[in-house]
Amino acid sequence: MTLLFFLFGFLLSTTISNVAAKDFCIADLKGGLTPGGYPCKSLQSVTVDDFVFSNFTVGTPNQLKMSFTPAFVEQLSALNGLGFSLARVELEEGGVVPIHTHVDATEVTIPTGGNFTIGFISSDNVVYMKTISEGNIFVIPKGLLHFGLNVGKGKHSAIYVFSSEHRSLQVVDLALFGSNLDSNIVAKTTFLDIEQIKKLKTLFKGSG
Amino acid sequence: MTLLFFLFGFLLSTTISNVAAKDFCIADLKGGLTPGGYPCKSLQSVTVDDFVFSNFTVGTPNQLKMSFTPAFVEQLSALNGLGFSLARVELEEGGVVPIHTHVDATEVTIPTGGNFTIGFISSDNVVYMKTISEGNIFVIPKGLLHFGLNVGKGKHSAIYVFSSEHRSLQVVDLALFGSNLDSNIVAKTTFLDIEQIKKLKTLFKGSG
Amino acid sequence: MTLLFFLFGFLLSTTISNVAAKDFCIADLKGGLTPGGYPCKSLQSVTVDDFVFSNFTVGTPNQLKMSFTPAFVEQLSALNGLGFSLARVELEEGGVVPIHTHVDATEVTIPTGGNFTIGFISSDNVVYMKTISEGNIFVIPKGLLHFGLNVGKGKHSAIYVFSSEHRSLQVVDLALFGSNLDSNIVAKTTFLDIEQIKKLKTLFKGSG
Amino acid sequence: MTLLFFLFGFLLSTTISNVAAKDFCIADLKGGLTPGGYPCKSLQSVTVDDFVFSNFTVGTPNQLKMSFTPAFVEQLSALNGLGFSLARVELEEGGVVPIHTHVDATEVTIPTGGNFTIGFISSDNVVYMKTISEGNIFVIPKGLLHFGLNVGKGKHSAIYVFSSEHRSLQVVDLALFGSNLDSNIVAKTTFLDIEQIKKLKTLFKGSG
Amino acid sequence: MTLLFFLFGFLLSTTISNVAAKDFCIADLKGGLTPGGYPCKSLQSVTVDDFVFSNFTVGTPNQLKMSFTPAFVEQLSALNGLGFSLARVELEEGGVVPIHTHVDATEVTIPTGGNFTIGFISSDNVVYMKTISEGNIFVIPKGLLHFGLNVGKGKHSAIYVFSSEHRSLQVVDLALFGSNLDSNIVAKTTFLDIEQIKKLKTLFKGSG
Amino acid sequence: MTLLFFLFGFLLSTTISNVAAKDFCIADLKGGLTPGGYPCKSLQSVTVDDFVFSNFTVGTPNQLKMSFTPAFVEQLSALNGLGFSLARVELEEGGVVPIHTHVDATEVTIPTGGNFTIGFISSDNVVYMKTISEGNIFVIPKGLLHFGLNVGKGKHSAIYVFSSEHRSLQVVDLALFGSNLDSNIVAKTTFLDIEQIKKLKTLFKGSG
Repeated sequence: MTLLFFLFGFLLSTTISNVAAKDFCIADLKGGLTPGGYPCKSLQSVTVDDFVFSNFTVGTPNQLKMSFTPAFVEQLSALNGLGFSLARVELEEGGVVPIHTHVDATEVTIPTGGNFTIGFISSDNVVYMKTISEGNIFVIPKGLLHFGLNVGKGKHSAIYVFSSEHRSLQVVDLALFGSNLDSNIVAKTTFLDIEQIKKLKTLFKGSG
Repeated sequence: MTLLFFLFGFLLSTTISNVAAKDFCIADLKGGLTPGGYPCKSLQSVTVDDFVFSNFTVGTPNQLKMSFTPAFVEQLSALNGLGFSLARVELEEGGVVPIHTHVDATEVTIPTGGNFTIGFISSDNVVYMKTISEGNIFVIPKGLLHFGLNVGKGKHSAIYVFSSEHRSLQVVDLALFGSNLDSNIVAKTTFLDIEQIKKLKTLFKGSG
Repeated sequence: MTLLFFLFGFLLSTTISNVAAKDFCIADLKGGLTPGGYPCKSLQSVTVDDFVFSNFTVGTPNQLKMSFTPAFVEQLSALNGLGFSLARVELEEGGVVPIHTHVDATEVTIPTGGNFTIGFISSDNVVYMKTISEGNIFVIPKGLLHFGLNVGKGKHSAIYVFSSEHRSLQVVDLALFGSNLDSNIVAKTTFLDIEQIKKLKTLFKGSG
Repeated sequence: MTLLFFLFGFLLSTTISNVAAKDFCIADLKGGLTPGGYPCKSLQSVTVDDFVFSNFTVGTPNQLKMSFTPAFVEQLSALNGLGFSLARVELEEGGVVPIHTHVDATEVTIPTGGNFTIGFISSDNVVYMKTISEGNIFVIPKGLLHFGLNVGKGKHSAIYVFSSEHRSLQVVDLALFGSNLDSNIVAKTTFLDIEQIKKLKTLFKGSG
Repeated sequence: MTLLFFLFGFLLSTTISNVAAKDFCIADLKGGLTPGGYPCKSLQSVTVDDFVFSNFTVGTPNQLKMSFTPAFVEQLSALNGLGFSLARVELEEGGVVPIHTHVDATEVTIPTGGNFTIGFISSDNVVYMKTISEGNIFVIPKGLLHFGLNVGKGKHSAIYVFSSEHRSLQVVDLALFGSNLDSNIVAKTTFLDIEQIKKLKTLFKGSG
Repeated sequence: MTLLFFLFGFLLSTTISNVAAKDFCIADLKGGLTPGGYPCKSLQSVTVDDFVFSNFTVGTPNQLKMSFTPAFVEQLSALNGLGFSLARVELEEGGVVPIHTHVDATEVTIPTGGNFTIGFISSDNVVYMKTISEGNIFVIPKGLLHFGLNVGKGKHSAIYVFSSEHRSLQVVDLALFGSNLDSNIVAKTTFLDIEQIKKLKTLFKGSG
C-alpha cells in the first residue's frame, strides 16, 4: 500500500511538468513552418494514428514508368523534427530516373525487387556507380547529382530514406528546359548548342 | 565630448538591429511549442523576474517519502532553448526511486545531504552503481534504466540537472502496471507471471 | 576552345580547396570515435563499395524465432555522421519482441510481410498500439518502452530505420534479470516479488 | 514523347510534397521569433527581392567618425536560419572602435581600405593584435573583448561577417557608464576609482 | 526455456553492433580535442568511477575570499559532449565577483547559503539585478557582462551550472589591466584616464 | 592590495580548467578531419597569425577570365568549426560562371565592382535572377543550381561568403562531360542528343 502512495506521490509531484514535457512533437501542419520544423500538436489531440502512415503502397503507375509514394512529414506527421523521411518507388522495365539532386538530403536506396543501376558524381567528377538488387543498400551523399536505370527484367521497386523531413528534388532537365530561363543564358552557362536547348525546351514545355 | 558623440553614433547606427537582436529568448509559454522550443517573449515585456525562479525549495513531502520541485522551462522561462533544466528532491529515510528512464535527458545528481545509492544499467547489461553523498556528483547517461535508494540515516536531498528543458519521466512499473496495456501482452513481452502482473495492476490501478 | 580553358581555369583555381572539401565523410572505423562520429577516411581510399552494403538480407534465423540484420555505421560506413541507420528483421509465427527501449533513437517500422502488433507507452502511461502490415509505417518516439508481436499467420518481416548511427538497445528483462543487479534492489525498485525475480534471474542467467 | 510523359509523371508524383518542401525559409519578420529563427514566409509570396539587399552601401557618416550598415536577417530576410549576417563599416581617420563583445558571434573583418589595428584578448589574457589592410582577413572568436583603431591615413572601410543572424553588441563603456548600474557596484566590481566612474557616467549619460 | 533462447537469439543477433553502439562517450582526455568534444574512451576501460566526481567540495579558501571548485569535463569526464558543466563556489562575507563574461555559456546560479546580489547588463544596457538566497535560481544569459556581491552576513555558497563543457572566463579587469595591452590603446578604447589605467596595471601586474 | 590577491585567487582557482577551456579551436590541419571539423591546435602553438589570412587578394587571372581566391578553413584555420568560409572572385568582361551547385552551402555574393547577373533555379523550376552591383547582396540557397554572367563593361569583382567551411563545387558540365560517365547513360538520364554529348565530352576531356 505504501508503495502505491509512494508512486502516486512521485507521479503527482511531476504532473505539472509532464503536461508540458513532450515525448514527441507531432507536426501541426496548419501551424507555420519554422526552420526547426512545424509546431507541435497539443498532446490532447494526439492519437495512435499520428504515428501511422497507412498508404505506403505502390501508387498507380503513371502513364509511363514510375510510381512514387512519399512518406514525408506532410503524410506522416510523427516525422516532425526527426530529420528524415521515406518514399516508396516502383519503376517499370526500362525506366530511368533522370539526373537530379536532393538539396540537403542524403538518399538511401533499399531495393526490394529488380536490378537497378544507380550512380552519383562527386564534386571532383568521379563517378560512383553500381548495379544493386534486393539485399543491397546504396547511399547517395547529399546534394550531389545522381541518376538510376532499371536495367533488369521487370519492375524495380525500392524503399528510400532521405535525411530530411523536407526532401526537395531538383531535376536538371526541368530546371534548365522546363523553366523560363532564357535560352541564351542556358547556352552560355551550359555550353550546350542552342538547337539542343530549343529542342528540349519544347519537350519539357519551358519558355525563354 | 567627441567621445560621447562617437559612442552615440556607434550606438545609433546599430539601433535598428539591436531591437531585433536578442541576448536571450525567454519562453512565451502561451505560444505554441516548436521542436526548437517556445517562441520568445517580446523584449519589452521581459523583466528581471523572468531570470529568477523563487520557489526552488523542498516541497511539502507527500504522504510517504518524497518531494520533487521542478525548475523546468515551464517554471523558469529563461531556460528556453538552453537544453537543460533543474530539480530539487528530498527523499525520506528508506525512500526508493523506482526504476525509470528519462527520455533524451542525461541526469546529473548533486547530493546535498544523506547517503544515496544510485545506479544505472547500460545497454549491455552492466550495472554501474555507487553510494554517493554530499561532495559527489553522479552522471546517468540519457535514456538508460536507473534507480536510487536512500540507504543512510535520515533524509537524502539532492539537486538534479537534466540535459533537456523538457525532461520527461517513464517509470517502468507505471508504464506496465499503471496503464491499460493488456495483461497478456505484458506477460508475453516481459516474461512475468500473469499472477504477478495482476497483483501489480491492482496496486498501480492499471487495467487490462 | 575558350570555353574549355575557362572551365579549366575555374577548376584549377579551386583545386586546392577541393582536395580538402568533402562531399561525404566515410567512417574510418579504425579511428577513434568522437561525439560527432568517426573520423573520415581519406578521399584517396574511398571506392563505390563504401556506399554499398551487400548483405542486407534476412539472416539465418536463430534457434527460435528471429533474425536481425543491422546496417549501422559499422556495416555501412557511408552512414557516418548522417544520424540514422537501418535494420532488417524477420520474426517467425508467434514471435515476440520483448519490452525494450532504444536510447536516443526514434524507430520507424516498415513491414514487408505478415501482421505485426506494435505498441509503445508514453511517459504519461498511455498505450499507443496498432496492428500493421505491408503498406503501413509506424513511428516509435525515441527512448520510450515498446514491444511487438507477430500476430498473423506465418512470418513477419520488416525494415527498420533508426534515427541514430549508434542505435543501442536496452531490453528491460535483460537489464533487470540478466545482469548482476542485486535481487533485493530489483525488488525494491520494481515492486516485483522476490520469487518472481529469482525465477527470471535463473531464466536469463543473471546473478545477485 | 515518352520522355516528356515520364518526366511529367515523375513531377506529378512528387507535387504534393514539393508544395511543402522548402529550398529556403525566408523570414516572415512579422511572425514570432523562435530559438530556431523566424517562421518561413509562404512560398507563394516569395520573390527574387527576398534574396537581395540593395542598400549595402556606406551610410551617411555620423557627426564624428563612423558609419555602420547592417545586413542582418531584419534587412535581408533570406539570411533566416543560416547562422550568419553581414555589415559594412567605414571609420574616418583617427576613428576608434571601443572595447566590446558580440555575444555568441564570431566576427570576420575583411578590410576594403585603409589600415586598421584590430585586436582581441583571450580568456587567459593574451592580446592578439594586428594591423591589417586590404587583402587581409581577421577572425575575432566569439564572445571575446575586442577593439579597433584606424591607424592609417584616411578612411578605413571593411565588410564584416558575423556567425549569427542576430549579432548583438555589448560595449563595455555603455554597459558600465551608460546604464543605471549603481556607481558603488561599478567601483566594487571593476576596481575603478569612484571619481573615474562618475566622470564617465557623466560622459555616457548613465545614472546611479 | 524457449524464452531464454529467444532472448539470447535477440541478443546475439545484435551483439556486433552493440560493441560499437555507445550509451555514453566518456572523454579520453589524452585524445585530441575536436569541435565536438573529446574522443570516447574505449568501452572496456570504462568503470563506474568515470560517472562520479568525488571532490565537489568547498575548496580551501584562498588568502582572501573565495573558493571555486570546477566540475568540468576535465574533472568529470562523463560530461563529454553533454553541453554543460558545474562548479561550486563559496564567497566570504563582503566578497565580490568582479565584472566578467563566460564566452558561450549561460550560467545558472543556485544559492545554497547567504545573500547574494547578482546582476547582468544586456546589450541594450539594461541592468537585470536581484538579491537571491537559498531557494532561488538565477539565469545569466550567455556572453553578457555580469557580477556578484556577497551582501549578507557570513558566507555565500552556491552551485553553478554552465551550458558548456568548456566554460571559459573573461574578467574585464584582467583582460585590460592584467595583460600587456598597451595603455594608450586601453585609454583610447575605454575612455579611461591614463592615470587610472596605470594604477590598475600596477595592481593587476599588467604591462604596456 | 587585497583586490589583487582576490583576483589572483579567482584566477588560480580556475587555472586548471582554463588550460583546457578553449575560446577557439584553430584547425590542426594535419589532424584527421571529423564530421565536426578538424581537431584543435594546442593552445601553446596558437599565434595571432592563426587568425589572419594575408593573401585575400585577386589572384593572377587564368588564361581566360576568372580568378578565384579561397579563404576556406584550409587557408584560414581559425574558421574551423564556424560553419562558413569566404572567397574573392574577379571575372573579366564577358565572363561566365557556368551552372553549378554548392553541396550544403548557401552562397552570399557581395559585389565590389561591375555588373553581374546572378540567378538560381528553385526545385519547383522557378528562376530567381537579378543584375547586381556594388551595394547589393544576393543570397543563393544551398544546393540549388545557379549561374552568373558579367554583363557590364570591365571586370566584375565580388566577395563571397559560403555557409560551410568545406564549400564544395559541382559544375554540371564537368560532372556530365568531364567525367568518365558512359555517354549512353548521360543520354538516357539527361535526354540530350548523343552527338551533343560527344561534342562536349571532347571539349571537357571526359571519356566514356
